[in-house]
Amino acid sequence: MSVGGPSGWPALLFLLLAMVLSFFCSAKSIDDERDELLKREAMVRLGGQLVLKKEEEDVNGKLMALKRAEIMEAMKTQKFPPSMHFFQAKKLIEKSEVFHVLKKMPKGAALHLHDFGILDMDWLVKNVTYRPYCHMCITPRGTLRFKFALPISPAPKKEDCSKWILLENYRKELQNVTEFDNGLLKTFTLVTENPEVTYADQDDIWTKFETIFFTISGLVHYAPVFRDYIIRGLEEFYLDNVIYLELRAMLHPVYELNGKTHDKEWCVKTYKEVADQFAKDHPEFIGLKIIYSDHRSKDASFIKKSVRTAMALRNRFPKTVAGFDLVGREDTGHTLYDYKDALLIPSLEYVNLPYFLHAGETDWKGTSIDNNLLDALIMNSTRIGHGFALNKHPAIMEDLRKKDIPIEVCPISNQVLKLVSDLRNHPAVSLMAIGQPMVISSDDPGFFGAKGLTYDFYEGFMGLGGMDADLRTLKQLAFNSIKYSAMMPAEKEAAMKTWEKIWDKFIVDQARK
Amino acid sequence: MSVGGPSGWPALLFLLLAMVLSFFCSAKSIDDERDELLKREAMVRLGGQLVLKKEEEDVNGKLMALKRAEIMEAMKTQKFPPSMHFFQAKKLIEKSEVFHVLKKMPKGAALHLHDFGILDMDWLVKNVTYRPYCHMCITPRGTLRFKFALPISPAPKKEDCSKWILLENYRKELQNVTEFDNGLLKTFTLVTENPEVTYADQDDIWTKFETIFFTISGLVHYAPVFRDYIIRGLEEFYLDNVIYLELRAMLHPVYELNGKTHDKEWCVKTYKEVADQFAKDHPEFIGLKIIYSDHRSKDASFIKKSVRTAMALRNRFPKTVAGFDLVGREDTGHTLYDYKDALLIPSLEYVNLPYFLHAGETDWKGTSIDNNLLDALIMNSTRIGHGFALNKHPAIMEDLRKKDIPIEVCPISNQVLKLVSDLRNHPAVSLMAIGQPMVISSDDPGFFGAKGLTYDFYEGFMGLGGMDADLRTLKQLAFNSIKYSAMMPAEKEAAMKTWEKIWDKFIVDQARK
Repeated sequence: MSVGGPSGWPALLFLLLAMVLSFFCSAKSIDDERDELLKREAMVRLGGQLVLKKEEEDVNGKLMALKRAEIMEAMKTQKFPPSMHFFQAKKLIEKSEVFHVLKKMPKGAALHLHDFGILDMDWLVKNVTYRPYCHMCITPRGTLRFKFALPISPAPKKEDCSKWILLENYRKELQNVTEFDNGLLKTFTLVTENPEVTYADQDDIWTKFETIFFTISGLVHYAPVFRDYIIRGLEEFYLDNVIYLELRAMLHPVYELNGKTHDKEWCVKTYKEVADQFAKDHPEFIGLKIIYSDHRSKDASFIKKSVRTAMALRNRFPKTVAGFDLVGREDTGHTLYDYKDALLIPSLEYVNLPYFLHAGETDWKGTSIDNNLLDALIMNSTRIGHGFALNKHPAIMEDLRKKDIPIEVCPISNQVLKLVSDLRNHPAVSLMAIGQPMVISSDDPGFFGAKGLTYDFYEGFMGLGGMDADLRTLKQLAFNSIKYSAMMPAEKEAAMKTWEKIWDKFIVDQARK
Repeated sequence: MSVGGPSGWPALLFLLLAMVLSFFCSAKSIDDERDELLKREAMVRLGGQLVLKKEEEDVNGKLMALKRAEIMEAMKTQKFPPSMHFFQAKKLIEKSEVFHVLKKMPKGAALHLHDFGILDMDWLVKNVTYRPYCHMCITPRGTLRFKFALPISPAPKKEDCSKWILLENYRKELQNVTEFDNGLLKTFTLVTENPEVTYADQDDIWTKFETIFFTISGLVHYAPVFRDYIIRGLEEFYLDNVIYLELRAMLHPVYELNGKTHDKEWCVKTYKEVADQFAKDHPEFIGLKIIYSDHRSKDASFIKKSVRTAMALRNRFPKTVAGFDLVGREDTGHTLYDYKDALLIPSLEYVNLPYFLHAGETDWKGTSIDNNLLDALIMNSTRIGHGFALNKHPAIMEDLRKKDIPIEVCPISNQVLKLVSDLRNHPAVSLMAIGQPMVISSDDPGFFGAKGLTYDFYEGFMGLGGMDADLRTLKQLAFNSIKYSAMMPAEKEAAMKTWEKIWDKFIVDQARK
């Protein structure tokens, strides 16, 4: 027998013990490593650093149980709304219990909306086109136009329609008015049963998209409708638990029945008056601001004028006009760099004109269009409209974070306009995972068959957030919408208090369930 | 007149000068800021730190001119191959001049391939099923099976087919053999004219995908075909300017005409012999290695055995067997965490068994499946198969970078298997933009109607890289494929020299054009 050092039976036992120990240590350390990695990711996630109160934790538990159940079910059925086209997913979404919680949730503000895209188009058909003196015509290109007028002028402009018909009379002669109205509704939205077939590419859908703006223009710019549209719009968002809006608005002339037209100042004043009245009638509603916008198809010389108009409007209505933006399709429009000289005017003249520039609403990485993101950053944009391409730009991402400039993510819009099909591949998924400053908005819900903000919050929560986004993410998104709004510090403080109050009420209500 | 301080005319002149100066300074500084941002992004991009030689710069110039022209054209026509389904894009890709340059480019190694998915399926139909003694049958489930055998055993197994037919005789009786052969080819690949309609969801396509492996199994596991398949496979990649392969291989039994079967050791030996001979016949070809793989549908107890088999095989063939992996659909299979105990065996026994784990081949962020990425990292995987979900995991991304562990990106596979439709939304776009370690591979080109590696390089260069990925990105990808291979240091050094030689020749050839 040897002495010193383990050998024979004791040695075997020792070895066995070492193996057992090493096994358990290893196994444990792997779980520790996992936990540590999971925690690291949870901490940087959007909202990951929020500490929830006891009641919020309870509500979160319930919400996450619903969410988990719905995702597990979708994994089985292979029918997951965020991975389907919104037109086909909408009915499924409306059946989701998560959706109904989100609907009730105070979502704060909607910061990326376009003037006449915010309202369910049904109202335009069923209410507006039924008003007296509503005329319709078909242009030589086959698109509809509308006009309210007492005596129809028999001398239309060259590109205009040759024959205006009074809808009141026309409907009387129709055998099937419902069919006609449904046809109108189809003309007013992008919604279709089979969008992949209807819209072969982005050109197709953008053509229809811009046509809708043209078509409804004669309806919404009629002064009484203009007013009502704003009221109805505010109402729709208010009912969707949104308390404040910022609208990109082109401020085209608004006309009266007698042919008289109103200018941009009148428009802003009307927005302000209507919103103020609405806020009085609805104590938890804060209001709206206008981001004056021009179309990026225009030549730089025109945009110079628009920038000056924006400066003047902001000077005249500092509380209502938040700043300036350029709208329209980025892929075919002028780049921000093309407009450099125009956009530099305010800073050269030491005037403060905040920008809220659309940028990166493109799939064409590395092109001059894609560089809009770069220029939006350099032009010191207060927020970035869409920023869809942002995750492809590490330096811009970094600088936007440093400057705390958020992107305005509009999931349904991006999907409908064919930038991405399965929203689980939306670039904001990775941005949400690192807590990049962002808000969620709905762009033109009326055009997409959506309503308010909840549908986009659903897509954001379920599709962009994945299984691990929870109430923290949602609370952060709502919080961000006020934090990154164009409200002035005192307004913001008041809005935050209002939102906190209704948030707490929401939590109490949900906790009771 | 006042004295002191500019006033009157001089003051106006001074103001004018100041404005002009300030304008130019501002304008300049904006261009400077742009350049700086662009440079910062260029530096971190995959390959961004490579310094090209003079001739390479020239070739890069030519290549980028072609690329720019093709992208500009696609922006007009809205027909951009990477944004279309590969089955529909293939013919367009083959017309691309960029594609033809990439075909000639020495791409280094293909590191993510599956044993019987590497070869154009046409060969199986036109060559293998025409060999003597090839029998076919249809299982009760309606799938085809094949078997080479001298006398057909009249006693098939329960789940097997009831009636085997000799193809030689069967074809003689057919009126239209071409039609039959085309039918076979359709059965052997996923290719279809309208993939969105044919495959409604991932379940559909994965069912067909796994069925193909089952169907061709009896063909490719027949010993003479097994040998020939390897030779043809190497040839196909060699002709595509790939000099080294790593194959995930299941090493199922290989059979002879007389019924005798060969075991895993025989398979590995055959792979080695065939590859050695091929390398002798083709001086610029390096060889292949095998990553022994089992299916993630199996219970953990089976996987324990497989890990031991892998350890034994690697011990017996250290130069040929590189390590171990788990294959099959992640969404429906066991997670790596389920296999934790099996995967820990080597380290507990102080045996080195490198892992090349599939992980993150999923759209289900935040689920237990998605956590495979976490466990692949913790299990110290040498590379990550696919890593499709990686950009959603900042902590894992960071640690993989620190450890210099690459992901194996297979763009066409990810698209065909319905993880993403427009490849410009592939998660690797953002990873390429930050220079995350990666290689590009083709997974199962034979199943997808692709060939070799060039189609995936095309998608990577045009789709993932966008307009700003250039020859640096391509060179880095080729370089990475050798750097991150499982070759031993001396082998790697030799391979790198070989690749550099043919790369330089490619540059000279291209520069001359």
